[in-house]
Amino acid sequence: MIPRIDGLQYANWSEKIFRQLRQGGVDAVHVTITYHETFRETVLNIEAWNRWFERFPNLIFQGRSAEDVKVARATGRTAIFFGAQNPSCMEDDIGLVEVLHTLGLRFMQLTYNNQSLLATGCYEAEDSGLTRMGRAVVAEMNRVGLVVDMSHSGERSTLDAIAHSTRPIAITHANPATWHPALRNKSDKVLRALSASGGILGFSLYPHHLKGGSDCTAPEFCQMIARTADLVGIGALAIGSDLCQDQPDSVVEWMRSGRWTKAVDFGEGSAEAPGFPAMPHWFKDNCHFGAIESGLRDVGMSGSEVAAIMGGNWLDFFSRSFTSGTMKQERAAE
Amino acid sequence: MIPRIDGLQYANWSEKIFRQLRQGGVDAVHVTITYHETFRETVLNIEAWNRWFERFPNLIFQGRSAEDVKVARATGRTAIFFGAQNPSCMEDDIGLVEVLHTLGLRFMQLTYNNQSLLATGCYEAEDSGLTRMGRAVVAEMNRVGLVVDMSHSGERSTLDAIAHSTRPIAITHANPATWHPALRNKSDKVLRALSASGGILGFSLYPHHLKGGSDCTAPEFCQMIARTADLVGIGALAIGSDLCQDQPDSVVEWMRSGRWTKAVDFGEGSAEAPGFPAMPHWFKDNCHFGAIESGLRDVGMSGSEVAAIMGGNWLDFFSRSFTSGTMKQERAAE
Repeated sequence: MIPRIDGLQYANWSEKIFRQLRQGGVDAVHVTITYHETFRETVLNIEAWNRWFERFPNLIFQGRSAEDVKVARATGRTAIFFGAQNPSCMEDDIGLVEVLHTLGLRFMQLTYNNQSLLATGCYEAEDSGLTRMGRAVVAEMNRVGLVVDMSHSGERSTLDAIAHSTRPIAITHANPATWHPALRNKSDKVLRALSASGGILGFSLYPHHLKGGSDCTAPEFCQMIARTADLVGIGALAIGSDLCQDQPDSVVEWMRSGRWTKAVDFGEGSAEAPGFPAMPHWFKDNCHFGAIESGLRDVGMSGSEVAAIMGGNWLDFFSRSFTSGTMKQERAAE
Repeated sequence: MIPRIDGLQYANWSEKIFRQLRQGGVDAVHVTITYHETFRETVLNIEAWNRWFERFPNLIFQGRSAEDVKVARATGRTAIFFGAQNPSCMEDDIGLVEVLHTLGLRFMQLTYNNQSLLATGCYEAEDSGLTRMGRAVVAEMNRVGLVVDMSHSGERSTLDAIAHSTRPIAITHANPATWHPALRNKSDKVLRALSASGGILGFSLYPHHLKGGSDCTAPEFCQMIARTADLVGIGALAIGSDLCQDQPDSVVEWMRSGRWTKAVDFGEGSAEAPGFPAMPHWFKDNCHFGAIESGLRDVGMSGSEVAAIMGGNWLDFFSRSFTSGTMKQERAAE
């Protein structure tokens, strides 16, 4: 049986949510462990995860390889894969790429909205593409098996990363800009290049990425997925819910403003609506993945197509991405 | 065939020394990666090792388990196991014990000569034994599979660690104090308690630990080992050469004085002889392990006894020590 995998969450983790992961049949999830934190602060976050792994061994464990997703299914637990939404965690030190991978990091965004040492974020006025250090770090990420994630990057930087990376990259949580023209959503050009290179897109359920926002319906969301499959093929498509369960609004402020500004950056929100937007009523928490699965069937997808999007494609991507290597590997199925 | 394993070195590592490890038939070696460094500085040292592993994959690789010693033998390379001579690397943060273990740390001394947050070093006037944090950290080290090393600790602290630890501990590099009464060498009481609890002693070739210093002969060294075997049994005995090949004297100053004093601490040296002492002429570098092996035969040990001391006992200890667990395991053979 094909597993169910979510390509991004940043919850206020608790036993309640770990139990919901089981109720929702989530065999594996990529969790953000760091935004603007330094390396040492990121290690503190890993320490907090280690405590959860120690306290709830019957619900969760740390995932490091595709094989761990199968272990999760076989033992009725959820494999937790670490990721970073910003390269702050590696500071200015390329040696930390391998160290972070050894500690279990499997995804790292090259930027979070702003210019980083590596590339340009999607909110900058000018996107100058991959920097000198960005090219060096992408090569090192390729070597050790740390996935380049361009969810919050600008168009040129994203195309640069796809072209420069010797291994397929991910956009773990975003939607097509043609459906909903948010700065965080991606052009057809990016989606085609991503797919052609063996990369993968996780469709986001964060309301600012949805046409109609919090009122977006499951049929609308699933029709968007079906249209994207027509554009780039099923093999590059998956889910990256961007669920931020039980987080206070102070957390979305930290995500957006970090320590880089003394003002408040509202990101995709606004002064009138600065906090987390309300999730769609049909996808509020980890119990609700079934709504996507049945919605995909309702728009005419076959069982194998639905299974691919709900986890099979992530599993295939995990199996190609997390081990060390320098060869560009072909996508197994399209 | 039983592997050859050295229980401690701190060389100025280079391709020359990696090749000598192969010439000397050293299948595995525990290397010190940190003395007084903070966590972040220790990670920089790990990064330097990662570069060596990347540059010399045909000579060395990082060892993490007893199984890796067999891989080393099978592939004609040396497995490098990381250790810390001081708990500075874990700062005041018990969560770093697991993080450092994940990064490959397999030994950690609770003290280096001085009082630490955990226990008392062998040069303090008063040894107050394991501290509150020391007991907590030993339990955590036991849980994750990080070996407690008491080579540079005081007598009471060492006996405390043996009693408190639920897994056997190591004294990776020291000799019996009855043979040569250096503060760094160990009393018969400690050696008996170590052996009775399944622990292990690595005999040191550092001249300050040798009767006669640099003039100590191979027969004298090997007779000392044979007498220790009479006292505590063969199963607890191994080699921990304490080789510091090609290090400048500034390094022994760093080991001794770190950042804890503005004066110069001469440690086992003196104002007249502040630097590294000359190694015995029969054991100057990694090519010379054969001199110990033949010396042990010359004092009447059987082939299996010699093999146990030259690596078999370390291999057995590694197999009992590096995986997570909380049960005290019995020593396999005496």
